[in-house]
Amino acid sequence: MRILIINPNSSLDMTRAIQKAARRFAGDSLAVDCAATPGAPPFIETYEDQLKAAPGMIRLLRENEASHDGFVIACHCDPNLDALKEITAKPVVGIGEASMKLATLLGHRFAVLSASAHSIPNKEALIRKYHLQDLGFVIAPSKGARGGLEEKLLRTARSAVAEKGAEVLVLGCAGWAGLDRRLQKALKAPVLDGVVCALIMVTGLVRCGLSTSKIGRYNPLPG
Amino acid sequence: MRILIINPNSSLDMTRAIQKAARRFAGDSLAVDCAATPGAPPFIETYEDQLKAAPGMIRLLRENEASHDGFVIACHCDPNLDALKEITAKPVVGIGEASMKLATLLGHRFAVLSASAHSIPNKEALIRKYHLQDLGFVIAPSKGARGGLEEKLLRTARSAVAEKGAEVLVLGCAGWAGLDRRLQKALKAPVLDGVVCALIMVTGLVRCGLSTSKIGRYNPLPG
Amino acid sequence: MRILIINPNSSLDMTRAIQKAARRFAGDSLAVDCAATPGAPPFIETYEDQLKAAPGMIRLLRENEASHDGFVIACHCDPNLDALKEITAKPVVGIGEASMKLATLLGHRFAVLSASAHSIPNKEALIRKYHLQDLGFVIAPSKGARGGLEEKLLRTARSAVAEKGAEVLVLGCAGWAGLDRRLQKALKAPVLDGVVCALIMVTGLVRCGLSTSKIGRYNPLPG
Amino acid sequence: MRILIINPNSSLDMTRAIQKAARRFAGDSLAVDCAATPGAPPFIETYEDQLKAAPGMIRLLRENEASHDGFVIACHCDPNLDALKEITAKPVVGIGEASMKLATLLGHRFAVLSASAHSIPNKEALIRKYHLQDLGFVIAPSKGARGGLEEKLLRTARSAVAEKGAEVLVLGCAGWAGLDRRLQKALKAPVLDGVVCALIMVTGLVRCGLSTSKIGRYNPLPG
Amino acid sequence: MRILIINPNSSLDMTRAIQKAARRFAGDSLAVDCAATPGAPPFIETYEDQLKAAPGMIRLLRENEASHDGFVIACHCDPNLDALKEITAKPVVGIGEASMKLATLLGHRFAVLSASAHSIPNKEALIRKYHLQDLGFVIAPSKGARGGLEEKLLRTARSAVAEKGAEVLVLGCAGWAGLDRRLQKALKAPVLDGVVCALIMVTGLVRCGLSTSKIGRYNPLPG
Amino acid sequence: MRILIINPNSSLDMTRAIQKAARRFAGDSLAVDCAATPGAPPFIETYEDQLKAAPGMIRLLRENEASHDGFVIACHCDPNLDALKEITAKPVVGIGEASMKLATLLGHRFAVLSASAHSIPNKEALIRKYHLQDLGFVIAPSKGARGGLEEKLLRTARSAVAEKGAEVLVLGCAGWAGLDRRLQKALKAPVLDGVVCALIMVTGLVRCGLSTSKIGRYNPLPG
Repeated sequence: MRILIINPNSSLDMTRAIQKAARRFAGDSLAVDCAATPGAPPFIETYEDQLKAAPGMIRLLRENEASHDGFVIACHCDPNLDALKEITAKPVVGIGEASMKLATLLGHRFAVLSASAHSIPNKEALIRKYHLQDLGFVIAPSKGARGGLEEKLLRTARSAVAEKGAEVLVLGCAGWAGLDRRLQKALKAPVLDGVVCALIMVTGLVRCGLSTSKIGRYNPLPG
Repeated sequence: MRILIINPNSSLDMTRAIQKAARRFAGDSLAVDCAATPGAPPFIETYEDQLKAAPGMIRLLRENEASHDGFVIACHCDPNLDALKEITAKPVVGIGEASMKLATLLGHRFAVLSASAHSIPNKEALIRKYHLQDLGFVIAPSKGARGGLEEKLLRTARSAVAEKGAEVLVLGCAGWAGLDRRLQKALKAPVLDGVVCALIMVTGLVRCGLSTSKIGRYNPLPG
Repeated sequence: MRILIINPNSSLDMTRAIQKAARRFAGDSLAVDCAATPGAPPFIETYEDQLKAAPGMIRLLRENEASHDGFVIACHCDPNLDALKEITAKPVVGIGEASMKLATLLGHRFAVLSASAHSIPNKEALIRKYHLQDLGFVIAPSKGARGGLEEKLLRTARSAVAEKGAEVLVLGCAGWAGLDRRLQKALKAPVLDGVVCALIMVTGLVRCGLSTSKIGRYNPLPG
Repeated sequence: MRILIINPNSSLDMTRAIQKAARRFAGDSLAVDCAATPGAPPFIETYEDQLKAAPGMIRLLRENEASHDGFVIACHCDPNLDALKEITAKPVVGIGEASMKLATLLGHRFAVLSASAHSIPNKEALIRKYHLQDLGFVIAPSKGARGGLEEKLLRTARSAVAEKGAEVLVLGCAGWAGLDRRLQKALKAPVLDGVVCALIMVTGLVRCGLSTSKIGRYNPLPG
Repeated sequence: MRILIINPNSSLDMTRAIQKAARRFAGDSLAVDCAATPGAPPFIETYEDQLKAAPGMIRLLRENEASHDGFVIACHCDPNLDALKEITAKPVVGIGEASMKLATLLGHRFAVLSASAHSIPNKEALIRKYHLQDLGFVIAPSKGARGGLEEKLLRTARSAVAEKGAEVLVLGCAGWAGLDRRLQKALKAPVLDGVVCALIMVTGLVRCGLSTSKIGRYNPLPG
Repeated sequence: MRILIINPNSSLDMTRAIQKAARRFAGDSLAVDCAATPGAPPFIETYEDQLKAAPGMIRLLRENEASHDGFVIACHCDPNLDALKEITAKPVVGIGEASMKLATLLGHRFAVLSASAHSIPNKEALIRKYHLQDLGFVIAPSKGARGGLEEKLLRTARSAVAEKGAEVLVLGCAGWAGLDRRLQKALKAPVLDGVVCALIMVTGLVRCGLSTSKIGRYNPLPG
């Protein structure tokens, strides 16, 4: 089985971080490639960024459709996921959708950890899109929070657990490989990395001959 | 006041039909331009079509941002609406959002008339996005239905009213200018054309100095 | 076009404030009258107040039905709106419904500013009635808050934005004409005055020959 | 214990029918009075009818507040219930609210039987108001249905059970005393009469010293 | 009429406390028995505890089915309620369901008082099960809170009212007989004891010949 | 990795069918055992059946906790899933939860195929429990339907797709191994077998060191 992880941005650093997480998951049983998106912005923060990434993502999908069995979109806002599900008959999984839905199996309420408050409403809109608004929420370090990213996320996660009833944490960024295990150890609560969750889903789907339904919403050929 | 209607596809026929509806609304009090989107597909049917329309739509918006006071996206699936709301500080209104939300003021339940069953799930996803799933639904002529478009839509609308409790009808396509008045006469129920509804909203917003909030979700500059 | 704004209470001061906001909106293109409700309480605070206003409101509507093209109910709790929509074939718009629904076009989450905590649950019930409970909330100055009304509302609005994710503010009272512009300037976020929002809607509806559906819920004649 | 049932209309026939159902429930342990509403329409079908009934209902409540321990509003659309809950410190129960909420204890899904299609949307709005939209629905005999009321309702109830998954039936009118037992026998499913359900609730509340909260929504004195 | 209250745990102290509350409600008009569940844990705190109580609860039900007219399950997590509703044709009422649904008749928002934070998510899951998630919430004393149970619950209830908009309080444990009246006096807001609420419901149902529908969900015999 | 599939009933035939599906999934990379539940009914149809299965299921879990890495509950009503998630620190996945949540990744709306109408409301209650009520529904062959099980399910699935907008099918019984592939071929739409879906999830969780959160809802030790 061969999976392509599409990193919707053009950052090679983040692509390497994602690949690292993917390789750790894959072991020997699975070939996983990770590609940065040509022509995309270095970081996906806005709705416009998502659209700018679209042509390159579609190109990556089409060029690798024959050689790969399944696809992962490795940005937590699941950019252009509906379109990619529609274009190919092979399974496509977004890390936002995979991680948040898997989180609902593991506890009563999940919290998505976001790096900054800016992306809270966008991530909330995604939660609504997947009908998860009663099951999870988004949280970010407060504006003037001190310390490094990991320290700030840990404090944020602690407050999500203690004050807002979170039982499962979801990393809100594709590039935080390894952070899931360290936070999980500190919090004694499951911490989900989206790339890993999407790989669980997509490899399972490929293995079982399952893919996106072409009956209606994701049927590319109207008629 | 000068409004730009962006037709997300490249069809000149549909652009003219939209312009006709817009001019009838505008009268002498308002300058309304309607532009087809360069580089877009001739018709927006799929998620990929929406993405293909994005670069041209963003270009149209940026080139006309200084000269126009507000913008309408004239395709009932509201393609790329979040991005356009984010990019400009001036008001942007999608005809899907405007018509379905206005419909909720006029009756207990609305039905969106769709030309074909193919777009029902996509339009349902849009209804969910706007949190209107308890207030309206989508309906299309059955597959083998005979007759011209208008005849088929009229029969579909009658069944939506008689069997499914629709009290307000919403045209699910931007290019059906004039159909609203004829159907309304035949049905004795309000029939909303999205272009007209969006113009009501956008001209009202411009007149009152209101526009998209830049506090969070539609703020183009993270920070 | 001639619009009648029905102020459901009997306060002439508030009627004048509403008329002021309406005139500023109307300019020369529109005749707007504003009438206090005979027999109504001086201020609508309770459910009983709403019922006491009903006979006068219905009389105002019936007496002015021939001479006016559309009607606005200018109290943010939309008293007796269902009945007025039912009685007349001409469009009737409540300022609560109009402002909260328009707010959803402008940002991710809205906050209704209420003068006192007493009306929070009643306003929340209205939000539920319109199926907006996932999109907005109500907030009021805390009980012992110091300062004038404007100062208190500004502080309350700031907290709604900073702590509760509000991106759009809605004035929760019809009599705060002018406050919208001043708060908007201070907050750099859209602030909606319900009277203005209702006028946008009702004038648009009249212009396009649209009105309340008489198919079912608002049909005065059972059959 | 002495309960007053307020029949919101002025029909003496219906008042007698309601009283009959109430007396059968009350037995010897309870004094139940039933009063028609002075000045109200003979039948409550429209939103305007509800408002016309308000002054008489409020008068009945105030005149009997000292002499009675609890109040029932005996019309299935629960007219002016919020106001009456607000006005008095004694318990007030609407037959719509009581019967639909009790129905949710007895089965997976309830159906409200309505005499005519006209009131379906209004009753649906009530179901929404009580947040029961996922638990029940409204159904009425089709327009040209033949037979007497009881026969038509029985057929309608059968179809609600067989085709739409109803497990509990709720009579949608206060004046159908006795019909509950006959339908229940024919259907072998619980059939709820609202007057009876409201009496269960209100007598229980009185017995236990419970009543409407005056903390917020139903507090008549703002401050 | 004879009612059996099944206390799902094996604690005789709690059984006596429940019986005390029941007897006060019953007066002379009603025979109420209360039985501890043989083989059950002394306190129901976990999902496993609920399952351990099941065989004894079913046995109690079956042994007393002929001699009693209705049944109450007296633990606020409503353990095994679906099964007991299914097994017998006589009415079975859970104190969680009865108290939370009755609470919605008495005010805008209810708060369930829980002894410890541990049971908050389980009680929230129950609120969701009954579709009450928009109408109420669960709250518990903070972890290090000082004072006796009653003092802590009173402080918790005060904060639920003042900061979270609760208007009605629900005791989250069957064994707090008498606490409802004392808290109600202190809070000047309705405080519901589940045992009392369930008795209101079950005696009303018995009196009116109503019981669980055997049409579908609670039909013990498939086919 | 070694997984235990707990078949909650005592049928050896069904246990073998489940094992067959599991072995096909597992290949050489995974040890999967499947055990029937001692003391359980031969088939789980009622709520009482679920409770009767509980002691045996808990025993199976405890006896195999050390030797196995993860657990699957192989009955589509997910009997006693909350308790098993609570008891062990290792991952436990129910086939109902896994299949319905995975279905939401593959299409706009899913339909659960049920063998008989009797279990529709129980399965609907499960859909509600997982907050999936807007995304899927349950359907069964009509009562008098002719033909073998497979033929009836195929016809039912076709009607779910054509008339109710299903895009993904979910087998509503653990014992239909192999049917997924045959129906999928006939329908040209994804058909999910719950055992397979649960194995995808549980093996992924084990592989990544993830399991049920012990923060709150599934914490066996209160405090």
